[in-house]
Amino acid sequence: MKIFQVEGTLVATARIDKLESRRLLVVRERGGSRSVAVDPVGCKVGDWVIAVGSSAAKDAAGHKDYPSDLTIVGIIDYWNTEEAGPGGAT
Amino acid sequence: MKIFQVEGTLVATARIDKLESRRLLVVRERGGSRSVAVDPVGCKVGDWVIAVGSSAAKDAAGHKDYPSDLTIVGIIDYWNTEEAGPGGAT
Amino acid sequence: MKIFQVEGTLVATARIDKLESRRLLVVRERGGSRSVAVDPVGCKVGDWVIAVGSSAAKDAAGHKDYPSDLTIVGIIDYWNTEEAGPGGAT
Amino acid sequence: MKIFQVEGTLVATARIDKLESRRLLVVRERGGSRSVAVDPVGCKVGDWVIAVGSSAAKDAAGHKDYPSDLTIVGIIDYWNTEEAGPGGAT
Amino acid sequence: MKIFQVEGTLVATARIDKLESRRLLVVRERGGSRSVAVDPVGCKVGDWVIAVGSSAAKDAAGHKDYPSDLTIVGIIDYWNTEEAGPGGAT
Repeated sequence: MKIFQVEGTLVATARIDKLESRRLLVVRERGGSRSVAVDPVGCKVGDWVIAVGSSAAKDAAGHKDYPSDLTIVGIIDYWNTEEAGPGGAT
Repeated sequence: MKIFQVEGTLVATARIDKLESRRLLVVRERGGSRSVAVDPVGCKVGDWVIAVGSSAAKDAAGHKDYPSDLTIVGIIDYWNTEEAGPGGAT
Repeated sequence: MKIFQVEGTLVATARIDKLESRRLLVVRERGGSRSVAVDPVGCKVGDWVIAVGSSAAKDAAGHKDYPSDLTIVGIIDYWNTEEAGPGGAT
Repeated sequence: MKIFQVEGTLVATARIDKLESRRLLVVRERGGSRSVAVDPVGCKVGDWVIAVGSSAAKDAAGHKDYPSDLTIVGIIDYWNTEEAGPGGAT
Repeated sequence: MKIFQVEGTLVATARIDKLESRRLLVVRERGGSRSVAVDPVGCKVGDWVIAVGSSAAKDAAGHKDYPSDLTIVGIIDYWNTEEAGPGGAT
């Protein structure tokens, strides 16, 4: 999965039927170019999210025939870079 | 999905049968190289579009055996970078 | 699909059985690195072609189990960057 | 497969149900950007790992419908750059 | 398919069961970063090989559930950049 920030909501009236009326968001990797992702989670502008690509994007969007190659699967709270347990960080 | 601008119509007479006579468009990402996409939407030169890749491109082109890895799924009207509701932009 | 120029024919005697004796071509994107594509069309050195990647490359090579991730699907004649009809170019 | 170093554990409370409660790790390729991988192996921060992408990431995560496009499949001990047997290095 | 040179054998004791005990090689594209490929062909260090990615890597590794996204499919002998027949090079 890749890490993106949500930049806005995309409006595309002329679309193939299979896209349905799902919410499409413009997202951007840090220092990267813009992509468009399907949002089944309910993100808002500015959120940092993780999105899945490849054929898994179809599963994540709800069903195997949904034509997505990038689907948001979660909103990032934070991440730990230190090992919590006694194992310690290397 | 990625954002592309339509640059022209591709003519390729010698092709595999499975490509059928579908309309193929030359498209380009901003600052990127040219790609070729199947167009089931009906775009014209200059349109900004979203296109799906990966195995979803086959579904988007109409059936699971269609040999596409890039299919246009919508024409972009515009996108909002401000949150519309009371949630506000972050 | 991506646009490549055919550079030559690849000879690889030691290969997995599933590759069969299909013709493999060395191809190159403009300004990019070399790739190897299966050729069911019959291209010659110097041709500009379109090739499909992702899982569609398997379908394009003839059957769903053929281990290709890049298959040539057409030879490019030319492309139009002007809208032919009364719709006009944007 | 690609080689990554584990940087930390990702916390994402708002997520699609299909992600379940699997452990998600922030990983980084040498000199590359951060990605997020599912970890069925049990890695700790600092480990160098191999992770599989594409549709194989779903299989590696346990079942064909799991929405992963990057799954850790092993922890690297080391690699040999010399041929061990009498065949010798080229 | 992409062209790689074999750099060494990877040792990863902690791995998911589905990887089995297959031979994993560290490979590198000319001027690119290292990847790890499954080797069903029997390559040695220094060999130039072609490897298949995408979902075809699973088929190439032997069965549809094998979690590979990069599988070596042949060892390169050489390639011709001149058209052999009377058709001539363009």
